[in-house]
Amino acid sequence: MITKYKSRNRRQPMVVSKTDAGLSHKCFDAPGVKISGFAPSENKLKVIVLGGLEEVGRNMTVFEYDKEIIIVDMGLQFPEEDMPGIDYIIPNVDYLDDKKDWIKGVIITHGHYDHIGGIPHLMGRLGNPNMFMGKLTAGIVRKRVEEFGKCPKLNIQEINEDSKLQLGKFFRVEALRVNHSIPDCFAIIIHTPVGTIIHSGDFKIDYSPVNDKPADLNWVAQIGGAGVLLLLSDSTDATHVGYQISESSIGDEMGKIFEKLEGRIIIGTFASQLSRVQKLFDLAEKFGRRINLQGRSMNDNVDIAHQIGYLKFNPRIIVEDHELSRLPDNKIIIIGTGAQGESSAFLTRVVNNEHRSINLKTGDTVIFSSSVIPGNERSIQTLMDSMVRQGAKVINYEMMDVHAGGHAKQEDLKLMMRLIKPEYFMPIEGNHYMLRAHAELAEQVGIAKNKILVADNGQIIEFYKAANGEVSGNLTKDKVLTDYVMVDGLGVGDVSNIVLRDRRVMAEDGMIVIIATIDAKTGNTIGNPDIISRGFVYMKENKELIQKTRMKVKRIVKDHNPRTPADNDYVKNKIRNDVGQFLFSQTKRRPMVLPVVIKV
Amino acid sequence: MITKYKSRNRRQPMVVSKTDAGLSHKCFDAPGVKISGFAPSENKLKVIVLGGLEEVGRNMTVFEYDKEIIIVDMGLQFPEEDMPGIDYIIPNVDYLDDKKDWIKGVIITHGHYDHIGGIPHLMGRLGNPNMFMGKLTAGIVRKRVEEFGKCPKLNIQEINEDSKLQLGKFFRVEALRVNHSIPDCFAIIIHTPVGTIIHSGDFKIDYSPVNDKPADLNWVAQIGGAGVLLLLSDSTDATHVGYQISESSIGDEMGKIFEKLEGRIIIGTFASQLSRVQKLFDLAEKFGRRINLQGRSMNDNVDIAHQIGYLKFNPRIIVEDHELSRLPDNKIIIIGTGAQGESSAFLTRVVNNEHRSINLKTGDTVIFSSSVIPGNERSIQTLMDSMVRQGAKVINYEMMDVHAGGHAKQEDLKLMMRLIKPEYFMPIEGNHYMLRAHAELAEQVGIAKNKILVADNGQIIEFYKAANGEVSGNLTKDKVLTDYVMVDGLGVGDVSNIVLRDRRVMAEDGMIVIIATIDAKTGNTIGNPDIISRGFVYMKENKELIQKTRMKVKRIVKDHNPRTPADNDYVKNKIRNDVGQFLFSQTKRRPMVLPVVIKV
Repeated sequence: MITKYKSRNRRQPMVVSKTDAGLSHKCFDAPGVKISGFAPSENKLKVIVLGGLEEVGRNMTVFEYDKEIIIVDMGLQFPEEDMPGIDYIIPNVDYLDDKKDWIKGVIITHGHYDHIGGIPHLMGRLGNPNMFMGKLTAGIVRKRVEEFGKCPKLNIQEINEDSKLQLGKFFRVEALRVNHSIPDCFAIIIHTPVGTIIHSGDFKIDYSPVNDKPADLNWVAQIGGAGVLLLLSDSTDATHVGYQISESSIGDEMGKIFEKLEGRIIIGTFASQLSRVQKLFDLAEKFGRRINLQGRSMNDNVDIAHQIGYLKFNPRIIVEDHELSRLPDNKIIIIGTGAQGESSAFLTRVVNNEHRSINLKTGDTVIFSSSVIPGNERSIQTLMDSMVRQGAKVINYEMMDVHAGGHAKQEDLKLMMRLIKPEYFMPIEGNHYMLRAHAELAEQVGIAKNKILVADNGQIIEFYKAANGEVSGNLTKDKVLTDYVMVDGLGVGDVSNIVLRDRRVMAEDGMIVIIATIDAKTGNTIGNPDIISRGFVYMKENKELIQKTRMKVKRIVKDHNPRTPADNDYVKNKIRNDVGQFLFSQTKRRPMVLPVVIKV
Repeated sequence: MITKYKSRNRRQPMVVSKTDAGLSHKCFDAPGVKISGFAPSENKLKVIVLGGLEEVGRNMTVFEYDKEIIIVDMGLQFPEEDMPGIDYIIPNVDYLDDKKDWIKGVIITHGHYDHIGGIPHLMGRLGNPNMFMGKLTAGIVRKRVEEFGKCPKLNIQEINEDSKLQLGKFFRVEALRVNHSIPDCFAIIIHTPVGTIIHSGDFKIDYSPVNDKPADLNWVAQIGGAGVLLLLSDSTDATHVGYQISESSIGDEMGKIFEKLEGRIIIGTFASQLSRVQKLFDLAEKFGRRINLQGRSMNDNVDIAHQIGYLKFNPRIIVEDHELSRLPDNKIIIIGTGAQGESSAFLTRVVNNEHRSINLKTGDTVIFSSSVIPGNERSIQTLMDSMVRQGAKVINYEMMDVHAGGHAKQEDLKLMMRLIKPEYFMPIEGNHYMLRAHAELAEQVGIAKNKILVADNGQIIEFYKAANGEVSGNLTKDKVLTDYVMVDGLGVGDVSNIVLRDRRVMAEDGMIVIIATIDAKTGNTIGNPDIISRGFVYMKENKELIQKTRMKVKRIVKDHNPRTPADNDYVKNKIRNDVGQFLFSQTKRRPMVLPVVIKV
């Protein structure tokens, strides 16, 4: 049995000294920090993952010791299928509401939305603590916050693999460069009073990354050799056998395809796959083509990365929309967003003839250079159909190796565990079955079964250092609140399960509003009940059904002759039930029935 | 430009002689059938695919010569993502409405829903023509029709690879056994006055099928040698490189997994994958386990197939639910439906603790032995999560080779074309991009580009035999109606695009009904407007927004003082627009606004 509690309801008195509350960034090996003198009950490190253990997305992890907290990542998750109309989901930070002043820093591993997307919504609420992230990540975060508008000015300190941070009294933090599908990705090394913890962030093993330094595996091994208490590691591809492909070999594969193509090349990819984008710039150079960028996020990201030197290209290679018609087709590469079939992105707009200057034509080749996010398969098929109809050729990763995933697969994950040799292991970032698969790999490389911690969102993990120096880790049964916080338009957290349930019911079989106007004195209906239906049956073609429903309503009112408010409620319930059953018997559909009684 | 026409609107006088209208089943080489004496305009074979060229599913093809028609398959399609509440889609047969008496026979290639699912809905409307299909297919069709209720008693003649049918004067039909994931699958050879046509049905190349005879490739080659005018061939896996795996090698793989397992084995698969089911019975025998069947369709199909000898097992191997608890776990295999995450199928019911006798427990292994139908990925992930939480291990086809597809891949498709050497080629059964991919393979094996016909649903393809014996094929620009016919509950074709659009709008942002009661004499509102909202915002937490909306409505009524019906419409439109804009500005959501004006 897991106990859930709301921190809001159990608000404790907060005791924070002034020096505690301030942020101190000392050098890693700065002298003078002594850790001692805590009552055993306080002498514990808590690890709480607020998001990322039951889904892919909304990653956020809290590390807490005494009255100090550091946070790693603050992401968003895209909605599930049964959440119509929801834009995205952010982590629930109720637990931190009365601990704002404990937060000594927020560290962001890299610039993808599932790691940064919650920042604009949450940083204000958390008291705007200092943030630490790579240069590129900082550029992307600043841009996003600027667009969002309602976020305080962030205090961001840029970090790299040489950074050593002292956050509060208890946390010494280092950044460890890792490879992924965007440059400036870091795993986070956290030295705590109970031992060293490594949070992997997102990573793959790539011995020849594109435009990014490879992870220093030798240093990883040295850290492992010095003793690591706990490794939290990326489980995204833990169910995939073998090794991940290197980003550079994708480039080679792309190059082979480019060689054969005479027409325009149109590439759909994520705006955030900047390593891929770099490779495309290199190939453009090699094949004497120029590059046109499409999609706001694509342009933004390329701008940011180019300005800070993370994308290397001669600006003259870029070609604007209005110049495209002047270039021969075999000199053009268009890179755009929308490879997941997103309705408002570049590729969909082109296919729907909604793009101001680009249409597909015979000779074009469209390359889908990204894996398919589960749930988007049908949209992508539709998109590919339309492209082929408009004369383009389509190449996707099923047909050729034109996408390398950004995540470590099983053998890569084992390598990381072998190098780090953690005492405790905790799989993060994945659906539960992925975490379990990762846990099994950990067992295979010899981590003790009772030291492999498969947790749920919000579950509190404690590490306690005894007087003799021995540390024991414990997956407690306590859980902080991690309900979905859904963002829909301007509303954050205001779409309740009731609202969602109603949306689902109406999507399934529509709804019918029945308005009975009743004479307050006699309790009889005035005229015919009004009936409005949407999404149920097409009313013009179902006059008989509607007429029968009207008669049913009139009879109910006549039989019960409502005069008091209690009568009203009774009649409304009766209409809801009887009409609902009647309509089901006639159509085998269950529209939402909304009775309204108006007394005049 | 493609011309669409509705046969209903262009109803021609029908001239059918009594002998024509009757069905004649003569032997293939029966004497006395002479083909001659038609005006050139009639001397054409029409091929019209009513479903299966723009989607996977609702397969149905019409072959028409003079006033005779034969039909191959009559399937259903599962709904697209943007069709909430729809059960499935069946082919549109408007084109056949005034040609019922021309239909000389309906041939069904095999017993999967995308080839038989339209039968109960359509056979009555088509005048219940004679049907021809394999023994197993007949069993499955009879069962489905029986359950459906409203279908006339079908006249089914069972066929096998020795069958030779004369349908009408012009069509001589043979069945060619092919392999797929269910036994009794046939390709159809149709000898017509203009030449021989082969319709592949669904097929894979399997040299060692399970419990099914392998296709006689030598005979296929002989037919090819005798000259084939047109091949219509299965494109489902035309975008997949290489060769499909044999069903028997899957069995071997499963066997290896079974060897290591000590607990219960639970297999999720399609009820229609009877070849897989046979292999599981064989493995049960080998490993001394007994089999428990779950899901109505699974029980039905196994019953049917066992009765007619298509599934071979000792009935004593079957174990009923109430006996399960008496058997040790390592003696149990449970085979059930629901591997696509279908909400009411066996696996989902078990996971949700809704099954009367089976719960998951530690030691169980669940094997997902089917590929994922695009669109079901998220449901399956959720299902796997729950299983793992309940202690079971999960194995799916990503992790091991536990699923062989039922469809030919690129190299297999090329082999079929090489053996048959058709003059014309027409890819069928797939999204448009799959058809195009298949067309490219056809080019690669040397079929002339202008004889590769990539058509759309309903597009008329004509083959004309000139006096000199030369046949020319032509993809015309004429198209018969093939709009979606959607089945929702009892309604067939009554869910219009308007109804669907309304469902989508309400699913996205909900709806709000605004009821203004107005004094007919003065044109003023009586009391406060009633407001009902569902799926938009939670009203109890948004009192201010609701109150402001009420005030807005009152002001609109006051400003316009509606007394005539035209005034009413004006006011309703005004409310719809102004309130819609107001709510969007406040929430960035666009609920459906439904204004009601009641005059008393």
